[in-house]
Amino acid sequence: MSSDSRPGTDRGAATAVEEGRAVRLPPTLPPFWHRRHVLDLDDFSAEEIGLVMETADAMKEVLGRQIARVPTLRGTTIVTLFYEASTRTRTSFELAARVLGADVVSIAAASSSVQKGESLVDTVLTLQAVGADMLIMRHHYSGAPYLAARSSHLKVVNGGDGWHAHPTQALLDIYTMRSHLGDLRGRKVVIVGDITHSRVARSNMWGLTAVGARVVICGPPTLVPVGLDGAGRRERDELALPPVEVDLNLDHAIEGADVVMALRLQLERQQAGLIPSVREYARLYQVNAERLARAQPGALVLHPGPVNEGIEISPEVAHGAHSLIEEQVTNGVAVRMAVLYLLAGGQP
Amino acid sequence: MSSDSRPGTDRGAATAVEEGRAVRLPPTLPPFWHRRHVLDLDDFSAEEIGLVMETADAMKEVLGRQIARVPTLRGTTIVTLFYEASTRTRTSFELAARVLGADVVSIAAASSSVQKGESLVDTVLTLQAVGADMLIMRHHYSGAPYLAARSSHLKVVNGGDGWHAHPTQALLDIYTMRSHLGDLRGRKVVIVGDITHSRVARSNMWGLTAVGARVVICGPPTLVPVGLDGAGRRERDELALPPVEVDLNLDHAIEGADVVMALRLQLERQQAGLIPSVREYARLYQVNAERLARAQPGALVLHPGPVNEGIEISPEVAHGAHSLIEEQVTNGVAVRMAVLYLLAGGQP
Amino acid sequence: MSSDSRPGTDRGAATAVEEGRAVRLPPTLPPFWHRRHVLDLDDFSAEEIGLVMETADAMKEVLGRQIARVPTLRGTTIVTLFYEASTRTRTSFELAARVLGADVVSIAAASSSVQKGESLVDTVLTLQAVGADMLIMRHHYSGAPYLAARSSHLKVVNGGDGWHAHPTQALLDIYTMRSHLGDLRGRKVVIVGDITHSRVARSNMWGLTAVGARVVICGPPTLVPVGLDGAGRRERDELALPPVEVDLNLDHAIEGADVVMALRLQLERQQAGLIPSVREYARLYQVNAERLARAQPGALVLHPGPVNEGIEISPEVAHGAHSLIEEQVTNGVAVRMAVLYLLAGGQP
Repeated sequence: MSSDSRPGTDRGAATAVEEGRAVRLPPTLPPFWHRRHVLDLDDFSAEEIGLVMETADAMKEVLGRQIARVPTLRGTTIVTLFYEASTRTRTSFELAARVLGADVVSIAAASSSVQKGESLVDTVLTLQAVGADMLIMRHHYSGAPYLAARSSHLKVVNGGDGWHAHPTQALLDIYTMRSHLGDLRGRKVVIVGDITHSRVARSNMWGLTAVGARVVICGPPTLVPVGLDGAGRRERDELALPPVEVDLNLDHAIEGADVVMALRLQLERQQAGLIPSVREYARLYQVNAERLARAQPGALVLHPGPVNEGIEISPEVAHGAHSLIEEQVTNGVAVRMAVLYLLAGGQP
Repeated sequence: MSSDSRPGTDRGAATAVEEGRAVRLPPTLPPFWHRRHVLDLDDFSAEEIGLVMETADAMKEVLGRQIARVPTLRGTTIVTLFYEASTRTRTSFELAARVLGADVVSIAAASSSVQKGESLVDTVLTLQAVGADMLIMRHHYSGAPYLAARSSHLKVVNGGDGWHAHPTQALLDIYTMRSHLGDLRGRKVVIVGDITHSRVARSNMWGLTAVGARVVICGPPTLVPVGLDGAGRRERDELALPPVEVDLNLDHAIEGADVVMALRLQLERQQAGLIPSVREYARLYQVNAERLARAQPGALVLHPGPVNEGIEISPEVAHGAHSLIEEQVTNGVAVRMAVLYLLAGGQP
Repeated sequence: MSSDSRPGTDRGAATAVEEGRAVRLPPTLPPFWHRRHVLDLDDFSAEEIGLVMETADAMKEVLGRQIARVPTLRGTTIVTLFYEASTRTRTSFELAARVLGADVVSIAAASSSVQKGESLVDTVLTLQAVGADMLIMRHHYSGAPYLAARSSHLKVVNGGDGWHAHPTQALLDIYTMRSHLGDLRGRKVVIVGDITHSRVARSNMWGLTAVGARVVICGPPTLVPVGLDGAGRRERDELALPPVEVDLNLDHAIEGADVVMALRLQLERQQAGLIPSVREYARLYQVNAERLARAQPGALVLHPGPVNEGIEISPEVAHGAHSLIEEQVTNGVAVRMAVLYLLAGGQP
């Protein structure tokens, strides 16, 4: 509901007194940051990802305060519009927005007129007209948040669209890796599981390659996009994916890995004939202690959740010393605060 | 949760410093304003509608501020209770309440025990007992908000009840017309479409005639209440509608119109046999450029939304220079802020 | 989202100026209060219940202020996680949390991924990881809130679990009785209805016996746990219920009662063959004027709501001079504020 303004200026300074210390961030955003939306990471530079990471560090400090509240987005109205059910992502965004002092309105497709044939564009234009500033959107159709961004003046954050992208999840994954490993250049990150249907995997491939990590994709041949490791650039352009390595044998792929990210196996893939059985899948692709022993000592284990324990990951690994699964969720709030903060300060 | 108190007194003045300027309104409400509810416009005087309009002007100024927040309703608890799905109206009311600093609790019938046989009166009494101050209610039964108002001490705003009334929609429509035309006395407003099933049309008829506009109703004979143009007062009393003109031929009705308001056609009317076909309906009753040329130059086009483009309105008119459809939605927040503000200051 | 800290110290004092007077409570909690959860009343001492009552008195004073807002839980994030629909309890907790200045996130199971096979423990750990401080939970399985408390560091309030417990309802019932009768020691409280399936009855039995009331249970033999009045302690231990009296004849049980609490009859009990007919149930167990005349003059009438008028209670009693049904709901907000306040100050 505010007109756009760079955070950290008068507003933040004035209100900082009232609510404790302000966020420790430079008063203006660096000149390379021009984003109004976060729709995917496919066009993010290493520099931009670095800015999100540093901002998230400052936000984590805010979250650690006794009263975790800053007035940075006071007067800003953020709408969460979720066409798919979600506890984790919606709650994470809502808390991020509230800690920053924004007003939050939550719309679940199931309990709103979006069900009744109102088009996505109509809904988005309505939200714009009533004064929303930012839209956080999850939709079962790939590309829906792009349509929302194109048809309105709202700032749009993609909270997951179909099999396509989930950029804030990838940002929080990268943040979590960096906080343990520092610079990710040259680090080997293995992503294992159902790659084809994973928006998490796709956004991570873009973000991780942008920051210079070596990404190795692993999974059953039926669940890895054909041609992902193709020699030619043309094939990759068709897949709309960055250059990554593919190694379908997990025992081999995991060798020397700095990070292993297991993906959730949707159990309906078996009914669709894409895997012979869940048991067989677990035998070949489960991240367990025996396999993890082949990775770098102290290799990090990530999973976007919710976990099917005993399927894509063994319980002792999911709850083991190197599992960062809970830390990922915690970091999610700080990273989403950073994204909202940076978008609020972006030029209109 | 507050006891009633006239806004603009100590409270507003004291908190104004903290949050920027207060709302520019006289410190006390005029003596003719005694309302505790806004259930329909059938008993609103021109003076009362004028007060809502002036208050909405002040609210629009608040919405234009960098931090759109005033503490006028701080400590007031507003419950939205929607038995019908709605994105637009619910979001508009929620934002209006939040900008004024109220606490908002949203109850969707689908996710609450109202489904499970708890009566409306029980629910309303419960909300009163837990400390709600105002109730904004949408219900599929005509008259339900009246029952809520009668059975409790809550201040009630009708957010749409059955086919009966939608007073804040009519107020925002009138506000939108006035902001372009000024005084509406003698102005010709044509409302075209499914009049019988339209709570928007009914409330507009009351409000527009109260402020002295000339209202012309148009639509298929099957969708216009029989006797609406009847000579006798008795018939009109039975219809519970004010004196309006009826002209079933849109080409003729639109001549010299200052405002044309198209209503959404519910497509199930065809299945019910009330229109021969959607195509035939569009041929006779669509507001398109050709027909609009017969109205006053620069005639305003309104629609309560969501629009069926190509049916009751042509795309070039819906998106044309004289379409105020998006402005209606924006004005909705200011008008609803005005209604909440005035009710909060009304005598208990 | 805050780290734990005893309320009433610096924080409360500093912010009190901004928002009016602080809550009138001693700066530190008494040494006997160590609770992090309120799961049932089976282990509450009379002293602890007394502390909740005194705290609720202070909260009631806050609710009576013109601006019912104190900043006591500012920066605290409270999640309501309801797997069963509820207007009354959820709204009551939400308002309690908001009046205390907490941030509230509401999750309805029906519109969240909890539906989709995410386990309760996963959901609770996710909420903990995103920074929730307290969890208010309703679940159809008895014991679910215990599981939530055991698996996380969240402070958990049971908002009703299966047929097991509903401790805040019992606390508000006891608060309502005390505010009319003072000390409840030796007072005769008759609870009548479907005892077996009532979490309200079970929690009240624990709480009322803890404060020294004489509890008499009444209802059809098919709806009263077998052995509840058994002589032996072993039987009672198996039932996990405190020593109460049982008298299946309401005309006799009600004699000399200080308080009569009628329970809602779920109409599906008839289909299950547990009562011969609703009419027969009403004939034998309805709390009506004739029966109430056998109780103490001015005996109080309570009901947890929603009421089936004409079944378990007659309309003239439900709306009569001694009915505290609406007062129970109102007290619910103050009692829940007290519970949230005391848990916020409890040792981690």
